[in-house]
Amino acid sequence: MTSDLLEAQPGRRERKKLATRQALQGAALRLVAERGLDQVTVEDISEAADVATRTFFNYFSSKEEALLGDAPRNVAAVHRLVVERPATESPLEAVCQVLRAMILELAERREESLLRQQVIERHPGLLARQLGVYASFEHALATAVAERLGAGRADPSYARLVAAVAVAAARSSVSSWRADKGRRPLAEVVDAAFAQLRDLGSPPPPPRPRRRRRAAHAG
Amino acid sequence: MTSDLLEAQPGRRERKKLATRQALQGAALRLVAERGLDQVTVEDISEAADVATRTFFNYFSSKEEALLGDAPRNVAAVHRLVVERPATESPLEAVCQVLRAMILELAERREESLLRQQVIERHPGLLARQLGVYASFEHALATAVAERLGAGRADPSYARLVAAVAVAAARSSVSSWRADKGRRPLAEVVDAAFAQLRDLGSPPPPPRPRRRRRAAHAG
Repeated sequence: MTSDLLEAQPGRRERKKLATRQALQGAALRLVAERGLDQVTVEDISEAADVATRTFFNYFSSKEEALLGDAPRNVAAVHRLVVERPATESPLEAVCQVLRAMILELAERREESLLRQQVIERHPGLLARQLGVYASFEHALATAVAERLGAGRADPSYARLVAAVAVAAARSSVSSWRADKGRRPLAEVVDAAFAQLRDLGSPPPPPRPRRRRRAAHAG
Repeated sequence: MTSDLLEAQPGRRERKKLATRQALQGAALRLVAERGLDQVTVEDISEAADVATRTFFNYFSSKEEALLGDAPRNVAAVHRLVVERPATESPLEAVCQVLRAMILELAERREESLLRQQVIERHPGLLARQLGVYASFEHALATAVAERLGAGRADPSYARLVAAVAVAAARSSVSSWRADKGRRPLAEVVDAAFAQLRDLGSPPPPPRPRRRRRAAHAG
């Protein structure tokens, strides 16, 4: 997730740092998409983003990290974000709200996200790293849920379940939004998925009317 | 998944085929764990399982496929299994029952499953393949859910959600079972996770009493 979630009102210095960070991420992505991971060095990326190589290492520890987008940073942020949600929210609700904000921010850089996923899937080593980041992300979420439930006393299985299924619902809503070619606003699709998640024990929604019949009714 | 789910009463011929299949899977796994993927050929695997190389290709199209366990076969089976569950079950219930049976069968070959996951995680190429198999598995589940909801008329987002969160709950229950060092029976842990999944909209379970206090009460 990008800075909106992390700092509500970034100052000029923060905005500049964010711009450099995004320039490095964008350069890494474009170069690796063009040439393949082995043909791109940290020097190439720094040059393309017009910064010194030394500066690159202020932001990322390796070219692989620069390619993973904001996911590694989100791992560090997600625990705090869930813990800081209003106490009136259930743990599930708190997790869903944080994931919702992250998805909507990600969607603002949609083209980049799609390119990133293509690049990652072409490089099994990157895919393995991304899986590791996702596992850490889910672990951080589960820890935050356990804290909201009452530190040290909560059922860790329940916390793990809430984290796993909320992430699955979020992921599935993005797939549905893509499959639907973005005809419905992403926020609406995400909200519908989380509402269905909370309501899973109830009977499934009724079948949608067939298009032809609906057209007849309308006419 | 192994044959139990696929054929209720395997005949002798089926049992022999299953034994050969498992021998090849076991040999592939042991050899690759020892030497690494690049140092093992289909010929090595066939020899270790005491079958002709030709026979290997009756079961698997590559050494990689032999290493992925029964997951690729489960993709082919899972759609039928979900569709054939009793009509009285909700789509979610049908999916949970099928996943439950698959997990319990997997647990019967626990050592092998653990070794398989270690081998796969050491080889990013295998991990990428496994991810692809999992995606197909979830897709097959979602298609089966949509069919149970009423073919062609169901909300595909709902079907996708049910598949994704049921798989997430299943995966999370296995993690919890492992984290708990198998102190509770796997079937019980899985059932608890699916029950919590159906009940996500309700308030979370109350905190567990602290051990010390419980001991005082008991004493």
